[in-house]
Amino acid sequence: MEEEQVSRPLQIAILGFGTVGAAVAARVNDPRTHPGLQLTHVLDRRAVEKAGRLPPGVCATTSIDDVLSSDADVVVEAIGGTEPATEWIRAALLAGKSVVTANKQVVAKHGPALWTLAARQGRQLRFEAAVGGAMPIVRAVADGLAGDRIVAIDAVLNGTTNAVFSQMEAGSCALDDAVQTARARGWSEADPSADLDGSDARAKLSILCALAFGLRVDAALIPAHDCRSVTCGDFAAVRRVGRTIRQVAHADFDWRRRVLTAWVARVEVPRRSLFARMTGPRNAAVITGEHAGAIGIFGTGAGGDATAVAVVSDLLAIARDRAAIVPPPHLSSDFRLLTSNFQVAGVSAFAFAEAV
Amino acid sequence: MEEEQVSRPLQIAILGFGTVGAAVAARVNDPRTHPGLQLTHVLDRRAVEKAGRLPPGVCATTSIDDVLSSDADVVVEAIGGTEPATEWIRAALLAGKSVVTANKQVVAKHGPALWTLAARQGRQLRFEAAVGGAMPIVRAVADGLAGDRIVAIDAVLNGTTNAVFSQMEAGSCALDDAVQTARARGWSEADPSADLDGSDARAKLSILCALAFGLRVDAALIPAHDCRSVTCGDFAAVRRVGRTIRQVAHADFDWRRRVLTAWVARVEVPRRSLFARMTGPRNAAVITGEHAGAIGIFGTGAGGDATAVAVVSDLLAIARDRAAIVPPPHLSSDFRLLTSNFQVAGVSAFAFAEAV
Repeated sequence: MEEEQVSRPLQIAILGFGTVGAAVAARVNDPRTHPGLQLTHVLDRRAVEKAGRLPPGVCATTSIDDVLSSDADVVVEAIGGTEPATEWIRAALLAGKSVVTANKQVVAKHGPALWTLAARQGRQLRFEAAVGGAMPIVRAVADGLAGDRIVAIDAVLNGTTNAVFSQMEAGSCALDDAVQTARARGWSEADPSADLDGSDARAKLSILCALAFGLRVDAALIPAHDCRSVTCGDFAAVRRVGRTIRQVAHADFDWRRRVLTAWVARVEVPRRSLFARMTGPRNAAVITGEHAGAIGIFGTGAGGDATAVAVVSDLLAIARDRAAIVPPPHLSSDFRLLTSNFQVAGVSAFAFAEAV
Repeated sequence: MEEEQVSRPLQIAILGFGTVGAAVAARVNDPRTHPGLQLTHVLDRRAVEKAGRLPPGVCATTSIDDVLSSDADVVVEAIGGTEPATEWIRAALLAGKSVVTANKQVVAKHGPALWTLAARQGRQLRFEAAVGGAMPIVRAVADGLAGDRIVAIDAVLNGTTNAVFSQMEAGSCALDDAVQTARARGWSEADPSADLDGSDARAKLSILCALAFGLRVDAALIPAHDCRSVTCGDFAAVRRVGRTIRQVAHADFDWRRRVLTAWVARVEVPRRSLFARMTGPRNAAVITGEHAGAIGIFGTGAGGDATAVAVVSDLLAIARDRAAIVPPPHLSSDFRLLTSNFQVAGVSAFAFAEAV
C-alpha cells in the first residue's frame, strides 16, 4: 500500500479555476517539468463551460462532494474569500487530504484551527502562496530563520497597491487609471478595495506575526491607512525631496515585555531605497533577527504565474514526503498590541529603508 | 520507542569548536529559545583545554568514535576542510545519525554521494549554512522555488571578499589592510586565499547549480578571477563612473540546449545597485525563474552568529520531523559548461544589477 502510494503521482484537485487555479493547472499538467504531479479534478462554479480548457481525463465538477469522495491526495484551494473556502479546506482535511492554499484571509483568520486539524489528521496544510506571491517568505520565516529570534519585519506585501503606486509615480496618472492598468495586467482583483485599504496586507502581516513571533494577532485590530486617498499631487510633493510612497507593513515584537507594534501605512521612502525600487506588482520584506541581523527577500508578489510557483512548490514538498510532520505553531495571545500613533512608528520603516 | 524518541530533546554532537561550532553550542544551549535541542558532545582537537567553556553535562572529546557510538541523533560538522570532514560525515550517516554541515567544499565535492547515502540510511543531511550564511538560499532554491524552472542565478556569495571590497571602497585602504580588518571582525579565516581567489564562491555556485538546475558541476572547472589583484586604484577608477567592484558568481542554464554558463568574476556594478549596497560580510542573490521572474534574497553571509542561525534552523527542521524524507536530487552530467570568455558574460550581471 505504501509502495503503491509512493509510485503513483500525487493526485491533485483544484478548487476554483480563475487566474490562480488556471495557472496552477497549466503548471501541474506539464509532465516535462513535474512528472510526480497529476491533475485529476477541477471544481468551478462554471465547470461546464470551462471543461473545454481542461486536459483530457480531468474531471470538471461543481460539487465539492465529488472532490471529497475522490482519490485526490491534495486539494488546492484557489477560490478566495473566507467562505466556502474555510469550510472546504476543513472538509478536505477531514477527508484525509492535504491542502495547499493561496488564501491569506482564511489562513489569517482560521490558520490556528486548521493547522491543528491538519496535524491531528496527519496531513499537511501549506500556504506559501498566501504571503508574498512567488517570494518564499513563509519558508524563510517559519523554517530558514527558525534558528534565530526574529524581532522585526518591514515589508511591501500587497502587489496590487505597489503596482498602482509605481504606475502613479512613473506616469503621474490618477489612482483610478492606475487601478485600471493593474487590473488589465492581471495584478488586481475586480475590486481592489481590500488591497488599497490595507486589509490584504493586514492579513498577511498577521500570518507573519504567527510564524515569526508565535502570536495570534487579529488582523482586523492592526491599524491601517487607507491608500485610496493618495493622489498624484502626493507623489509630486514627495518626489521633490527624493522620495516616493509605498504601502509598508511593519511589525516588531519586544519579547521581554511582550509588546507587539504592528501597522500598515503609506510611508514616504527614499527613491533609492529597496522598497522604492520595487516597482510593479513586486513584494519585498526585511526580516530582522537578533543573531542574523537583517535578511531581505523580494520578488513578484501578484499575478497567476507567480502565485502558481508558490503553490506548485508546496505541491512538490508534499509529493516529496507525503507523511511529513508539520507541527502547528504554538500561538500565544499573551501580548499587548500597541496601536497608538502608528504614524510615528512609520519613521522606523523610513529609517530602515534608507539603510538598505 | 517512537514515543520516547519524540518526547526527548534532539541530542546533538558538534564536531569542531571554532567560531561556528562555539556559536552553535551557545544557541543550542539556550533552553529559553530551543527546549527541543540538547547539546551532548563536542569534538575538538583541543577538547581538553576547551572543556571549561562547555556547559556541565556536555562530553568533550578528541575521538570521533566517542561521537559515533553515542546516543547523539545529529552530528553538526563544523571543522571545515574536506578531510576528515567528509569521512566523519559519512561515518555519522552510517552510524544512523543525521548530519548538519556548514561545509561548502564537502557538499560541492561529495554532496551527491552523501545525499544518496543519507536517503538510503533514512537520515537527513542538511546544509543551509554551506551557502549564504544566514540568508536561507538553499531552502529558497531547493524548496520555495521548486515549482518554477530556474534559468539564472547572480550572486555575491563570499562574505569575506565582500567585506574586504566594501572596506577598500569606503576607506581607500589596501587589500591587505582590509583583510586584516575582516579577520579581526571574525568575517575571515586565518588564510583568506580561498575567499579571494574565488574557490569558496565556486564551491557555493556548484551547490546552487545542483539544486537549481540538477547539474553535477565540478567547482574546479568554473572559471574564476582571482580578486587578490584588485587595488585601491581600481576602486578609485570605477568610482568616477559611478561604479564599484564586487565578486559576483553567475550561472545560467539553457534547458533546451543543455548549456551551462558559470563563472566567478570581479564585476563593476553601479553604486546604486543591490550588489553595491551589500556592504560588509553580506551576501545577496537574484534567482531568475521562467515563471516567477527575479526573486532576490540578501543577508549576513559570514561570521559565527549568522552561520549558527542557519545550522540551528536545520537542527530545528530535524527536531520537528526526524523521519522527514529528503530525496537526493537527481543530478545529471549531460550538459556542456561554457567557459570561454567569462569577461564578456560579466556584462549580463552588470545589466542585471543596474535593474535591481
